Amino acid sequence: MKDELKRGFASDNNSGIHPDILKAMQEANVGHCIAYGDDIYTQSAIVKIKEHFGEDIDVYFTFNGTGSNVLALKMLTESYNSIICAETAHINVDECGAPEKFTGCKLLSVPTENGKLTIEKIEYHMHDFGFEHHSQPKIISIAQVTEMGTVYTPNEIKEITSYAHKNAMFVHMDGARLCNAAVSLDRDLREITADVGVDVLSLGLTKNGAMNAEAIIFFNQETSENFKYYRKQGMQLASKMRFMAVQFEALFSNDLWKKNAEHANKMAKILAEAVAEISQIQITQKVEANGIFAIVPSEIIPKLQKEFFFYMWDENRSEVRWMTSFDTQIKDIEEFVLLLRKLLK
Amino acid sequence: MKDELKRGFASDNNSGIHPDILKAMQEANVGHCIAYGDDIYTQSAIVKIKEHFGEDIDVYFTFNGTGSNVLALKMLTESYNSIICAETAHINVDECGAPEKFTGCKLLSVPTENGKLTIEKIEYHMHDFGFEHHSQPKIISIAQVTEMGTVYTPNEIKEITSYAHKNAMFVHMDGARLCNAAVSLDRDLREITADVGVDVLSLGLTKNGAMNAEAIIFFNQETSENFKYYRKQGMQLASKMRFMAVQFEALFSNDLWKKNAEHANKMAKILAEAVAEISQIQITQKVEANGIFAIVPSEIIPKLQKEFFFYMWDENRSEVRWMTSFDTQIKDIEEFVLLLRKLLK
Amino acid sequence: MKDELKRGFASDNNSGIHPDILKAMQEANVGHCIAYGDDIYTQSAIVKIKEHFGEDIDVYFTFNGTGSNVLALKMLTESYNSIICAETAHINVDECGAPEKFTGCKLLSVPTENGKLTIEKIEYHMHDFGFEHHSQPKIISIAQVTEMGTVYTPNEIKEITSYAHKNAMFVHMDGARLCNAAVSLDRDLREITADVGVDVLSLGLTKNGAMNAEAIIFFNQETSENFKYYRKQGMQLASKMRFMAVQFEALFSNDLWKKNAEHANKMAKILAEAVAEISQIQITQKVEANGIFAIVPSEIIPKLQKEFFFYMWDENRSEVRWMTSFDTQIKDIEEFVLLLRKLLK
Amino acid sequence: MKDELKRGFASDNNSGIHPDILKAMQEANVGHCIAYGDDIYTQSAIVKIKEHFGEDIDVYFTFNGTGSNVLALKMLTESYNSIICAETAHINVDECGAPEKFTGCKLLSVPTENGKLTIEKIEYHMHDFGFEHHSQPKIISIAQVTEMGTVYTPNEIKEITSYAHKNAMFVHMDGARLCNAAVSLDRDLREITADVGVDVLSLGLTKNGAMNAEAIIFFNQETSENFKYYRKQGMQLASKMRFMAVQFEALFSNDLWKKNAEHANKMAKILAEAVAEISQIQITQKVEANGIFAIVPSEIIPKLQKEFFFYMWDENRSEVRWMTSFDTQIKDIEEFVLLLRKLLK
Repeated sequence: MKDELKRGFASDNNSGIHPDILKAMQEANVGHCIAYGDDIYTQSAIVKIKEHFGEDIDVYFTFNGTGSNVLALKMLTESYNSIICAETAHINVDECGAPEKFTGCKLLSVPTENGKLTIEKIEYHMHDFGFEHHSQPKIISIAQVTEMGTVYTPNEIKEITSYAHKNAMFVHMDGARLCNAAVSLDRDLREITADVGVDVLSLGLTKNGAMNAEAIIFFNQETSENFKYYRKQGMQLASKMRFMAVQFEALFSNDLWKKNAEHANKMAKILAEAVAEISQIQITQKVEANGIFAIVPSEIIPKLQKEFFFYMWDENRSEVRWMTSFDTQIKDIEEFVLLLRKLLK
Repeated sequence: MKDELKRGFASDNNSGIHPDILKAMQEANVGHCIAYGDDIYTQSAIVKIKEHFGEDIDVYFTFNGTGSNVLALKMLTESYNSIICAETAHINVDECGAPEKFTGCKLLSVPTENGKLTIEKIEYHMHDFGFEHHSQPKIISIAQVTEMGTVYTPNEIKEITSYAHKNAMFVHMDGARLCNAAVSLDRDLREITADVGVDVLSLGLTKNGAMNAEAIIFFNQETSENFKYYRKQGMQLASKMRFMAVQFEALFSNDLWKKNAEHANKMAKILAEAVAEISQIQITQKVEANGIFAIVPSEIIPKLQKEFFFYMWDENRSEVRWMTSFDTQIKDIEEFVLLLRKLLK
Repeated sequence: MKDELKRGFASDNNSGIHPDILKAMQEANVGHCIAYGDDIYTQSAIVKIKEHFGEDIDVYFTFNGTGSNVLALKMLTESYNSIICAETAHINVDECGAPEKFTGCKLLSVPTENGKLTIEKIEYHMHDFGFEHHSQPKIISIAQVTEMGTVYTPNEIKEITSYAHKNAMFVHMDGARLCNAAVSLDRDLREITADVGVDVLSLGLTKNGAMNAEAIIFFNQETSENFKYYRKQGMQLASKMRFMAVQFEALFSNDLWKKNAEHANKMAKILAEAVAEISQIQITQKVEANGIFAIVPSEIIPKLQKEFFFYMWDENRSEVRWMTSFDTQIKDIEEFVLLLRKLLK
Repeated sequence: MKDELKRGFASDNNSGIHPDILKAMQEANVGHCIAYGDDIYTQSAIVKIKEHFGEDIDVYFTFNGTGSNVLALKMLTESYNSIICAETAHINVDECGAPEKFTGCKLLSVPTENGKLTIEKIEYHMHDFGFEHHSQPKIISIAQVTEMGTVYTPNEIKEITSYAHKNAMFVHMDGARLCNAAVSLDRDLREITADVGVDVLSLGLTKNGAMNAEAIIFFNQETSENFKYYRKQGMQLASKMRFMAVQFEALFSNDLWKKNAEHANKMAKILAEAVAEISQIQITQKVEANGIFAIVPSEIIPKLQKEFFFYMWDENRSEVRWMTSFDTQIKDIEEFVLLLRKLLK
């Protein structure tokens, strides 16, 4: 294997494709299908997704997480609305302003300790309803898993969705790592989305072993009328969609989604435990899924990155992020911790 | 093979993936790569693309043709500009207003007989420069192959680009079927793009055997400064980009791009010749690439579509479109023509 | 009077303010009013407007005609919609792409002989409903008076609105010269708008003697919910709105709107009759309001413009436009025709 | 005078028009002028403005402060940029998301104690330059006077502009109350804008006695190329512009701008001094221009508002805002303070 291709802890999207998924893509590579989703693979995948999320949903495949987030937000807003989110939210800091550009809305962020919104934090932005000079709050957007590796409990989600609905607002969930959250909570996917009142989900499976499998799920079909035009206008409609569809099919069959996420979470736990024993390192967030945030002596970071690439999270406090993946192996962790210890001696 | 998966003549994007390309994707499925294009596969693919299009270009992969077209137009315009195109242009009729939404520009279309712009047609919209009430023309957008299956000669392109540059405008080429055009003209890819003055190309290989391989190529790097932000904000930045990159690599190695396009074009020629012998059918456009437009007695169309799916082009005059593909087989054509003759008896 | 301030025939917006209107502005210049329209002057003006257009309407003042057109279109569309209009429509050629920029919609224009749409012309663009690749037609926009100086009859409007509503579409009327049309048809304002099915009107009085009095009128209040936010976000909410409001009040009291428009139309008629007698000049459109289009020998145009400024309409065929105004005087016309005759000798 | 028209302390835009300005509008009401700014009044006003702000500037009139702010920001950004401002900034909380909608940019706000940005506060958002996932900071926007009634010193501005330019960024100044700041600092208008490095100014005179006189001033003409198209597309181009122009002319002649602002500031000072003597009231911000922020016993607020309308600023802490204006009279203050004392007894 080329050196560049060594498994590291940079991100779960640095991994490749799970073999079962690639196999499904190969098997779908026969004959002709109508493009743009009007094919049997897409239909079948949607049936499968409904088994996990409920019958009365609307499902649309998209190209990537940003597209999925932005179009979900667009569908449920007018341009004079605002969207409340954590300061660390992907939609706020990692999408180069795509939400603002495409929806015209204002994003209202609040600092959090752990990436999680609370009613109290949300309330900071809940004012000036009916006042035409002020963007009108319409969506609360939460990430599950959060960008800080933490996981909302079903009750925490329920509290937010109840609050939102009481205020005639919607809740969007950025589920780029939803499977990792479900596994962490030992819940079905539906129990942490539809069942606790989420209105729209950006479901991401790319980080869980797919090549590119992203979808928007509307839990109330009344809210998604004419969405298909937004997907096309939003440049998110794939022509050879069958090759996306079969990735969903593969992941949602035989519990592959769960196995992959369980593995990644377990690897994170093992890595976190190993690291916790090293006195010079301080883990800064609860390790609830497949991400670890830690303060590491700054002088060793470049040397460590040279062997196992990963990202700085907060340069000022020498905080780094380590992500595990469906394909992380025990020996990767062992080597990594060994090197860590060596560098810290 | 399932009945739904029978090869038809609906579109070249109804086909699957060429085996060599899928194989390349499999081979790239090892280890970890930095996401979003900062990987050795992407670097290598860009080197390969430069062999075909020239060294001094800027290449960006995107998800689909619409994304590629829209972002290319965005880069070279301000929102107060206008874009001149054929009335049948994909950007004008098949992208659900994505160009207007993302660029803010006005599209100015002109009717054509064969999908091709001429200076005379373009001039219809060349007025009111400097007048602040009027959108200022900035881009002439042409499709190669056109949406009517016709092909611009290098001289025709050169004439348009010279005219554009003389007027301080740019030329965008929608190359969703560029390979078919190159083969049709017996030219290299560069000879019908960079060498004849095209400023920006939307290069599409999805219709030529890839799963999803689309790129924007800027032939003058000065025009593409900071483009990467538009790609991200335009929701067109793939995370596991290596799997796109290797599709380009595969197509641009061993002349696969050419073989696929040659085959598709040849199949179209064969089909056209067979059909030309049928007196009740009238071919309406020159068959210069892999598309055939024909007026067919309306009563047989549904029966024909039942066996071999294809699209109506113009209901009013009973005109249909038949597309061949890299995987079209002689026997598909034979069966199709046989059925056609049978239905017309 | 300074030379530059000589009355000409360039446009009805080159004129100043009718004295009664300026007087109303002076009289409103007392004490403090709540800004942004929550004042007694605005309330009173809206009551007055309702006397002319009906009780069940929603009225919003804006800054200019472009703002009024664009926001009306925004309210009744989603970004994936398209708007059908005449090729000469102000929204199509004179607003620098503001409709596309703010609504995201595509404008679909059709050539006309006289600025007027017909069902037949509209039908050219009525296709691909339900097809996600295609912008979905939602609004038919007509101008009354048209940009070519012609006037739709109530029946012609009714035909278009019926057709629109049958197709689940709306009709927008650009009423920048609505008063001139009403006077031309000898109808009330309501009879050529609400009563014939218009959904939303951009009412312009600036060209009829106001300084800046533009409004959007929604004839069905259900369609204008939350419009106030679009007005603010669209940068069209005035702070000292009372000074706009009293302009409406003045114009809609004592039939000032009608007197001004009658005068302008009458002046156009007189000018047209005088010009019709000159053999070298050919009037090209029916003179139904206050605009005259004429083909004039090109060699005299610059000399004529030097004394009485006006605009070329179509350079290629030496066609000019002459507009009369509420303040045009008989002697302006006499002098103009005298000069015309002199130059043509 | 009608009761509703009593002078209060709600806002300086609740006042009317200064008599000299209205007189100038009347005097300009003669003959015809070319519309859209190509007239002698507009030319003359721009000459006058250049006397105050420097020769090498570009001046564009707009309709209102929001339009002026938004278009200034649009001119100096690409949609992938971000704009740093105080959390209380008008562009952030009082424009219903117009900046996001029209520019596509992200607004990055920071809490402040007094409405003023500092380098330290700005630095919070200065990261991830060159990282395509992150909106790229391009503008620092400050308000002079701030929304909290405070005034930046020339040195404070210089510090911010130097910092911005060092980082290849621009500084936008929202000068809705610039005259009040200049008077407060005893400086010329140029000394607190061009001379301290401001790149673009939204100059508002509506709050200083005009009916509607707002302008964008670019201090470096190289940055404003083709701006006129954005103004038109941004729906901010007035037809009868002469009536705006003469308002500028009147205010910038005979030091009327200064007299009006001096008066308003002086009235605020007097009111603040009178209120400072009342023990139950706590002034919360320095009174540096014409605004006073104060915590007032909540039970008296409704009664006070009934006689002299004004706005709550922060309901939670019973903080109100009182604004004085060019037309505030000593007796207004006396009556107001008398009532205040009476209610607090």
